[in-house]
Amino acid sequence: MMRSSHHSIRPMAAVMLISVCWQKRSNHAVAQLGINELLVNSAKEGRRVVRLKGGDPFIFGRGGEEIESLRAHSIPYQVVPGITAANAAASYAGIPLTHRDHSQSVRFVTGFLKAGAPNSNFKSFLNTDETVVFYMGLHSLARLTTGLIDAGRSSDTPIAIVSNASMPNQQVLTGTLADIVELQEKNQLPTPALLIMGDVVALHHDLAWYNLQNQQKNNNSDTTASNWLRGGTAATPKADHTSQQAHALSMVANLATADDGLEQLVIG
Amino acid sequence: MMRSSHHSIRPMAAVMLISVCWQKRSNHAVAQLGINELLVNSAKEGRRVVRLKGGDPFIFGRGGEEIESLRAHSIPYQVVPGITAANAAASYAGIPLTHRDHSQSVRFVTGFLKAGAPNSNFKSFLNTDETVVFYMGLHSLARLTTGLIDAGRSSDTPIAIVSNASMPNQQVLTGTLADIVELQEKNQLPTPALLIMGDVVALHHDLAWYNLQNQQKNNNSDTTASNWLRGGTAATPKADHTSQQAHALSMVANLATADDGLEQLVIG
Repeated sequence: MMRSSHHSIRPMAAVMLISVCWQKRSNHAVAQLGINELLVNSAKEGRRVVRLKGGDPFIFGRGGEEIESLRAHSIPYQVVPGITAANAAASYAGIPLTHRDHSQSVRFVTGFLKAGAPNSNFKSFLNTDETVVFYMGLHSLARLTTGLIDAGRSSDTPIAIVSNASMPNQQVLTGTLADIVELQEKNQLPTPALLIMGDVVALHHDLAWYNLQNQQKNNNSDTTASNWLRGGTAATPKADHTSQQAHALSMVANLATADDGLEQLVIG
Repeated sequence: MMRSSHHSIRPMAAVMLISVCWQKRSNHAVAQLGINELLVNSAKEGRRVVRLKGGDPFIFGRGGEEIESLRAHSIPYQVVPGITAANAAASYAGIPLTHRDHSQSVRFVTGFLKAGAPNSNFKSFLNTDETVVFYMGLHSLARLTTGLIDAGRSSDTPIAIVSNASMPNQQVLTGTLADIVELQEKNQLPTPALLIMGDVVALHHDLAWYNLQNQQKNNNSDTTASNWLRGGTAATPKADHTSQQAHALSMVANLATADDGLEQLVIG
């Protein structure tokens, strides 16, 4: 194994971006510039830095900005892909994002209602063969549904709110572009939440399997699969750790045992 | 913990869909109906069935069809989300799928060139603020690039071919809609491969970090990060197992130790 001889920092001092499961968003978002600086400075001080991220670093995760900053300082890094919120929500809500009979593509969107985006954006969401996942769209739900219907999307289009996806307090609320705002006013699902829109959402009624005891009463109330889950297997999600979190933690623990004398810093 | 008392099959006989890392596609695809039948019959015979899948079960993975079949037979199941090929390719190619400065959304597409899809489909791929990942698009590369340019997409649009993503033989080839076909004719990257299109692809030149010794000569040749990787850490991807595969296998092993006397069947 070769080592780089023109290394500008101590060998092996480096940064790894690892993902843990979708986490509750902090109310006080730490300034990204501060994080970038912390990663760079910690590595320059000779530590191996593990940057834990929620979801996938490269999907609405600002992982790109972090490694650009590292690259600018010639600090080596690894990026470990993760389960982005859309995938977690889909699996645990029983909503396939693609399906040969219903959806041939899937699109992850966020914040497109911000920054004075023109309504014409809605025109690009008329394809009924495509599933759309809106990250962080719950606060814009009314503008979103109105905009889509005004742009020509059928008011019958199925849409789901998945709240606290994959967590023991997961809740799923399904409706259509016409009635989801009213349903949410009644049911008040909390954030963090994402929205899944498309014909595949109609499959939730039959395919839901996780945390069914938490479902709103307009949803599937069959608890067979849920009882099986609660009966317990080693892989049953626990309240404290999802399997992905456990996986990330075991990777961190493995790193910590590396016999290279480097101090390790975990930035969550 | 309660057990369902109105269970129609033996308690705990059930199916879990788990993902392992992106695998080489089989040349002889097993008929999906045969797999569905195998899952159902094995569970009905009282086994706990682990269905291993490549990628994410709900993104071009036919997981929806499999659990529809289970549901029709009242067989409980779990679905564990996985790393879909787009996420793996992005992380290991150093191409952020979203980036505040370049891309506010991402789209996963497959097979839209098949089944006589009209060229007008290309018109929906003109948004320069969106990254598009084409699964299994390599064989259609010429038609794809021509169609997109004819539909009005700039011929300067960056596009990457990521071959054997995340594997020791990963290769990345970058170009534009205008020249990627010619570059691929020269370089002949093998399948499995996916295509990433959008401004974020331009970041690969600076951000690439994995398997740089395998890069084509038109790409980034700095091997600092690569040497660090080959220097070895506990989390360095191994030739035989990716960390996600190891994770899936450990879940399977955990299940096998469940003290319920059920025979376990793993279907890969």
